[in-house]
Amino acid sequence: MPEPRIGVVGATGAVGTVTLGLLAERGFGQVRAFASKRSAGTKVPYAGDELEVEEATPESLGAGELDLCFFSVGTAQSVELVPAAVSGGAVCVDKSSAFRLTEGIPLVVPEVNGERAAGHEGIVANPNCSTIQLVCALAPLHEAAGVRSVRIATYQSASGAGVERMEQLRAQEPAAGNVSMDWELEGDEFDEETKLRAETRKILELPELPFSATCARVPVLIGHSQAVWIETEAPLSPEEARDVLSGAPSVTLADLPTPRDAVGRDEVFVGRIRQDSAGDGLALWVVCDNLRKGAALNAVQIAELLLERRVLAA
Amino acid sequence: MPEPRIGVVGATGAVGTVTLGLLAERGFGQVRAFASKRSAGTKVPYAGDELEVEEATPESLGAGELDLCFFSVGTAQSVELVPAAVSGGAVCVDKSSAFRLTEGIPLVVPEVNGERAAGHEGIVANPNCSTIQLVCALAPLHEAAGVRSVRIATYQSASGAGVERMEQLRAQEPAAGNVSMDWELEGDEFDEETKLRAETRKILELPELPFSATCARVPVLIGHSQAVWIETEAPLSPEEARDVLSGAPSVTLADLPTPRDAVGRDEVFVGRIRQDSAGDGLALWVVCDNLRKGAALNAVQIAELLLERRVLAA
Repeated sequence: MPEPRIGVVGATGAVGTVTLGLLAERGFGQVRAFASKRSAGTKVPYAGDELEVEEATPESLGAGELDLCFFSVGTAQSVELVPAAVSGGAVCVDKSSAFRLTEGIPLVVPEVNGERAAGHEGIVANPNCSTIQLVCALAPLHEAAGVRSVRIATYQSASGAGVERMEQLRAQEPAAGNVSMDWELEGDEFDEETKLRAETRKILELPELPFSATCARVPVLIGHSQAVWIETEAPLSPEEARDVLSGAPSVTLADLPTPRDAVGRDEVFVGRIRQDSAGDGLALWVVCDNLRKGAALNAVQIAELLLERRVLAA
Repeated sequence: MPEPRIGVVGATGAVGTVTLGLLAERGFGQVRAFASKRSAGTKVPYAGDELEVEEATPESLGAGELDLCFFSVGTAQSVELVPAAVSGGAVCVDKSSAFRLTEGIPLVVPEVNGERAAGHEGIVANPNCSTIQLVCALAPLHEAAGVRSVRIATYQSASGAGVERMEQLRAQEPAAGNVSMDWELEGDEFDEETKLRAETRKILELPELPFSATCARVPVLIGHSQAVWIETEAPLSPEEARDVLSGAPSVTLADLPTPRDAVGRDEVFVGRIRQDSAGDGLALWVVCDNLRKGAALNAVQIAELLLERRVLAA
């Protein structure tokens, strides 16, 4: 297979920047950077050199010059631009929520359901950052004992809300830090919570999984933390869970992992595995760099899977 | 009753400072400030004036010159000093964990089990900050429907760890914020989590209540947040829970309360009351100023209860 021609759309954003870094590390040579009109003409670093940012339009992305396209832009932009890129012949790995729950579009975490990627028809959806780290921890436990219910409280970092929020956090007084909830309420829950449930159900193929999430944003730059309680169908002791997770791909066991420990790392850190003293399950603490495995790295791993299995063409 | 002679021990600390402010607001005139040797001789503001800080020793506190004594010092100091003050004739409201679980010593949140305070033998224990806000929300729900289990993830502020931690947070780069876990591990849980369970059980008089806590510290100066799931014995809809809590003392319903909203306020804010979509109970979000109702205010309210019921003498 000739070297793929790659587009990174949203190249100046938090996830786009990390995506470019990961592609450079992996030695991809034919990479172009795209962003909104506002950023077009600026430069972004790539592999010791620079790329000039091109404007992302249906025309530029649909011109038949890309084999693979990473999107980390807002949902509205993905809805407009992804189909154009697909028409132009690119396989698109999309980070927005535009296509994640669309029937027939694979929603993929390679370690968990990588085999689903091959069934794509031009689009593979990259899950929400919170979903990715959660299912990396849950899938091996589900395989071992069957997950019967999930309760999760999140401690999400500013970078999950994008570059502007990161700049706000950097600029504010440390004493001004707050626990905030900056998502849309849909009925009595946040869209973020609804997504986390729906995406986890789709990836684990448990469409009825009882699941309750409380999402909150904390004044941390990078790294999402999660307090998780699960009930399982079969008994699963903390020791058994540790055994299962110690052999799980992309999972690293740690005693007390914090976001700072996870920054720049590729793994999902799982710690505090113990009996749920309120019920018959387990309590866990799950931490991950939301920009890497929670976003850009998962997208690049999806692409590697497609390249490896030679299923890049739709 | 003549005006009580009041001692505030730990007067230069985070909780002591707030205690002095609350006593001044209430117009108490005979107040003395005590702290460790290191702070003795310094001044603290009181009611537009200043108090000279005296060294807290068994002798100074046990000299028979105090009727009421607030302690917000470490457990070791409370163990040494509280009995001396009691011997000297003071009723002590102690914020440390030294006496909270001692059989026969009342552990009091006035709105929840204020009647227990009258049974004191010189010491009334003031619960952990996390416990106070939790039981203010749980007790009315328990009365309405019976709480059968509790799961709680905490987002605790720096001030809960004292003045030094507050200064560290003020001095650090905002980008250095982390979710940390700075408590002692006892087996597979933090002493903070064990306390939260044991104190909640004691206050609600539910010695076997199934209860699982995950405690975490977030880079927020003041105000603890809690994501809570409860199961109840009788069905309790979110609407019913809101009705119950809207009439509960010290509880204010809010849609999306944050720590910043709670700072300087006396109430416990409860929001996000909704069905637990993982089970048969409810999910809640509970926020409170941990230095006020979570600490100093609760202590002052205990004292007011004792004064009102004329049970200040042991």
